[in-house]
Amino acid sequence: MEPALYLIPSTMSDSPVANVLPPLNIEIVREIRHYVVENIRTARRFLKRCDPSIDINAITFTTLDEHTDPAEVPAMLAPIADGQPVGVISEAGCPAVADPGADLVAVAQQKGVTVVPLVGPSSIIMALMASGFNGQTFAFNGYLPHESRARTEKLHEMERLIRTRRQTQIFIETPYRNNRLIAELVSTLPSGMRLCVASDITGPSQEIITLPLAKWAKRAYNYDKIPTIFLLYS
Amino acid sequence: MEPALYLIPSTMSDSPVANVLPPLNIEIVREIRHYVVENIRTARRFLKRCDPSIDINAITFTTLDEHTDPAEVPAMLAPIADGQPVGVISEAGCPAVADPGADLVAVAQQKGVTVVPLVGPSSIIMALMASGFNGQTFAFNGYLPHESRARTEKLHEMERLIRTRRQTQIFIETPYRNNRLIAELVSTLPSGMRLCVASDITGPSQEIITLPLAKWAKRAYNYDKIPTIFLLYS
Repeated sequence: MEPALYLIPSTMSDSPVANVLPPLNIEIVREIRHYVVENIRTARRFLKRCDPSIDINAITFTTLDEHTDPAEVPAMLAPIADGQPVGVISEAGCPAVADPGADLVAVAQQKGVTVVPLVGPSSIIMALMASGFNGQTFAFNGYLPHESRARTEKLHEMERLIRTRRQTQIFIETPYRNNRLIAELVSTLPSGMRLCVASDITGPSQEIITLPLAKWAKRAYNYDKIPTIFLLYS
Repeated sequence: MEPALYLIPSTMSDSPVANVLPPLNIEIVREIRHYVVENIRTARRFLKRCDPSIDINAITFTTLDEHTDPAEVPAMLAPIADGQPVGVISEAGCPAVADPGADLVAVAQQKGVTVVPLVGPSSIIMALMASGFNGQTFAFNGYLPHESRARTEKLHEMERLIRTRRQTQIFIETPYRNNRLIAELVSTLPSGMRLCVASDITGPSQEIITLPLAKWAKRAYNYDKIPTIFLLYS
């Protein structure tokens, strides 16, 4: 196995491993002895779900989270110089997209270390696939601003990008505010604009629904505290 | 099995099915008798690779490509009304992101048909993971304009979005022009800006390299005719 930095997606919403990860990932996970993870407890649990026979005590875990001193990051690649692969596991879905793993990948690229991304569930791409919206051009905006004026400005900017660029707009919200966000979109944006709400992707209550805002205005829904991703398009 | 519209990613670069698709996908593929595909020949070949024992002659294929009359699209969902699942297979990677499958998904959403996206290889997300760039906010721009002035404008707009929004910029080029594009980026954009070139993702010659443009200027490379995705960040 090539000594490289392997980016290993994890399951989301407690979905079975066989539903969302290719067999290659399990083979690779079995070989790696050095992991960089956001949370050691959940990473151990994930590895056990990949293969219950994995000897967790033979594995070294290093934590990389928002509290990690950037000066400590380069040393996490040390096993690779010794010919040993290193794995990165995120809390949910694809690592190094919106988590501290990206800093480790940036250092690896700087040092010329081979980086190998593995296939796994991406709520952004799965929501986009199921939305029916334009995938030729799209933007992921992360969290909307919380401050009221910046937030309204951001919504109008997204409206403009949809109209002038045909660019699908994707964003997320703190989960306990999901319902409030939908009400806000309904009251702020044109009623003909379509909103896709993709919730609990790969999970038991998965629901991906695209409707014009005028229909969301009349619909009963409850997405609070459920991981949800939002997409807007004309 | 729920009568729904299943979005089934296919392999890219002839990689083995077990490298890029979860076992669930194969189980689902075995059950479906009605497929909507871009190209029947490659779809048959893909299904045979998923499971050589699949009886291809028992399967109905309907073509949905850029020549399809939009008026014919709604009828492609007819089996679902009869309790039969319908599958969508794209030419490579995730369907309905940048292919005509999105039109079928839009009709399904309009009719209230359940849409189920499955996990598979997305060159956009895999390149973003391995780039080390910002994944909190990013834009996929599709193909760059060909016309020289619009093209230069687009490059400078991306430069501005990186500087002011910290938004990673992702784009593609007609494969035979890949080398020329890199030379153009080197001559047009600031030398300190970082370019990630992700080529043959999941394939035997996969290479994902992030370097400042100043280093790309001095580097030997040949990406012509290889499926490649480009990412820019500061």
